[in-house]
Amino acid sequence: MLKETRPPELVVSQWLNTSKPLSLSGLAGRPVLIHAFQMLCPGCVAHAIPQTQKAHRAFGGTDLQVIGLHTVFEHHDAMTPVALKAFVLEYGLTFPIGIDEAGVNTPLPVTMQLHGMRGTPTTILIGRDGNLIAHQFGQIDDMALGAMIATALAADGDAVGIRKTAGDNKSCAGDRCKSP
Amino acid sequence: MLKETRPPELVVSQWLNTSKPLSLSGLAGRPVLIHAFQMLCPGCVAHAIPQTQKAHRAFGGTDLQVIGLHTVFEHHDAMTPVALKAFVLEYGLTFPIGIDEAGVNTPLPVTMQLHGMRGTPTTILIGRDGNLIAHQFGQIDDMALGAMIATALAADGDAVGIRKTAGDNKSCAGDRCKSP
Amino acid sequence: MLKETRPPELVVSQWLNTSKPLSLSGLAGRPVLIHAFQMLCPGCVAHAIPQTQKAHRAFGGTDLQVIGLHTVFEHHDAMTPVALKAFVLEYGLTFPIGIDEAGVNTPLPVTMQLHGMRGTPTTILIGRDGNLIAHQFGQIDDMALGAMIATALAADGDAVGIRKTAGDNKSCAGDRCKSP
Amino acid sequence: MLKETRPPELVVSQWLNTSKPLSLSGLAGRPVLIHAFQMLCPGCVAHAIPQTQKAHRAFGGTDLQVIGLHTVFEHHDAMTPVALKAFVLEYGLTFPIGIDEAGVNTPLPVTMQLHGMRGTPTTILIGRDGNLIAHQFGQIDDMALGAMIATALAADGDAVGIRKTAGDNKSCAGDRCKSP
Repeated sequence: MLKETRPPELVVSQWLNTSKPLSLSGLAGRPVLIHAFQMLCPGCVAHAIPQTQKAHRAFGGTDLQVIGLHTVFEHHDAMTPVALKAFVLEYGLTFPIGIDEAGVNTPLPVTMQLHGMRGTPTTILIGRDGNLIAHQFGQIDDMALGAMIATALAADGDAVGIRKTAGDNKSCAGDRCKSP
Repeated sequence: MLKETRPPELVVSQWLNTSKPLSLSGLAGRPVLIHAFQMLCPGCVAHAIPQTQKAHRAFGGTDLQVIGLHTVFEHHDAMTPVALKAFVLEYGLTFPIGIDEAGVNTPLPVTMQLHGMRGTPTTILIGRDGNLIAHQFGQIDDMALGAMIATALAADGDAVGIRKTAGDNKSCAGDRCKSP
Repeated sequence: MLKETRPPELVVSQWLNTSKPLSLSGLAGRPVLIHAFQMLCPGCVAHAIPQTQKAHRAFGGTDLQVIGLHTVFEHHDAMTPVALKAFVLEYGLTFPIGIDEAGVNTPLPVTMQLHGMRGTPTTILIGRDGNLIAHQFGQIDDMALGAMIATALAADGDAVGIRKTAGDNKSCAGDRCKSP
Repeated sequence: MLKETRPPELVVSQWLNTSKPLSLSGLAGRPVLIHAFQMLCPGCVAHAIPQTQKAHRAFGGTDLQVIGLHTVFEHHDAMTPVALKAFVLEYGLTFPIGIDEAGVNTPLPVTMQLHGMRGTPTTILIGRDGNLIAHQFGQIDDMALGAMIATALAADGDAVGIRKTAGDNKSCAGDRCKSP
């Protein structure tokens, strides 16, 4: 189910919450959790962004790198860098957040296109070997995400037998996810 | 913080949801998640029991063994085996549940005493090597529990750096946990 | 939609949380909120019972009478008076609760039959004139219930234009209600 | 606690979700619920805005007028009219929303100052007689709000004995409210 591929590099126009830019190549050997969101995506605000903040805190003692990616594909004049900075401050987000590079002749930003993301929220987990472990559009249950991250931390390896969705995962029910 | 000890055996008077009795010795080599609860413990009903059911489902494809333990230390005439069976049916619990053996000259049941449990809910995680990984009274966050279980599944080993409590863990706030 | 009828009297075998038995006739002139529940009904425990406790508190300065009614129609040997007392203690319920009189040759208790209740939770609101204002099986939204009670308090009258269910009312979704 | 006063008029630079401007004077004889919010106020987004939408729906059959008021007192370059429009669309808000007129030589907008609002969310309920019924900074419980509105609908009068906060009202706990 998970493509045994090396995900493309992040293309970011501006970084928040970090003094120096991050790159997947620069993080080689460490598991990376990327959470793509939009600040005006209700499902992101209610579930996925707090979940990412929680993961950043819960795994703060490990070498997991949590990265937020602001993949604006609609309402570009509302979700500006200035607005994002206010949002990050108000919601108390402390993990590094990259602003996905605006697309040319398309509302879709560059990294979103390169990674084939379907919308927001999208969660991407990359292993120590640089290969993709998970790429999921919609909500992931906290327990399942915790398990996937821990498996990535523990091994070079594969998360055999851990289901991505548990009991209360409503995925994209109620139109809370956003897709272009 | 975690005692590098081999936890004592379960002493159970009756099993539900399993055709044959379970024992820690019989589960050697497999990680075991024990959730001790009382059916009239509000914190168990609201959080810990659904969490255990979720773990049972989420890790159903692994060799983790989830065990519920009904450790009645109060209201013994209310939380009878007949009442527990109705509760298990109504709440749709499908994991094996043992009824902790009643204590002699004490309201505390036997396994609860042997394991030094402080009350309900208590979550115990045992590794493949039979040693204790975690023993926690009160709520554990879903993400942290998922991570601990996955680490136990992945290794012989230790869950270095994963915090037991994440952002929304309120532990025993609001008197929702029960202790004797 | 609401039957302009005078609901039948309560038939109760035992009262909790009150020094003297309550009756609808004895409460003439006051609005009465009756919440019929079973202590092992998941939808009651998660939503309707806390809601009733909240109404008891929120309207404590008015002449509204809140009454719980334990209408056991299944698992009779589990939901005994002894078990109910433990439940009431553990969940911190302070409003008067009557145990519905057991039925003869039927699992349905007497008041439940007389009032034509379909299951638990059922919420019944009676006006100052003794007539039925609402009789609802399943969840009612807090805002709608607050509005119905306030209307009953304010008038002899009818709750014109207030909807019984608002945005997040999931009614009986997910099999959380119980019916015989 | 409630000032027996006639609240000042709304001063609004732009209206959303209504074809013609609203004014308190134009609504004389009808109860009015004003919810002052900021689109980047976490407590507003999580609780007060959905509550206002719910009230708009639940009382849609009555002559209650629900009004949102975007009282931007910080991050002015983030919470622009363009951004608010995207927010209103994404969150599916259908009640009329006025943008509070920007202040002169102060970050506080005009209506916010005139009404003496302490921050967001603030809920204001005005009776049929044009007098103030409630003015509350922070969260209000759904049940209490429903009761206050219904009382305002039912009478010229006062909501005697209904408490503004019920069991689960956390008011401004956790810094989710915003004040200048």
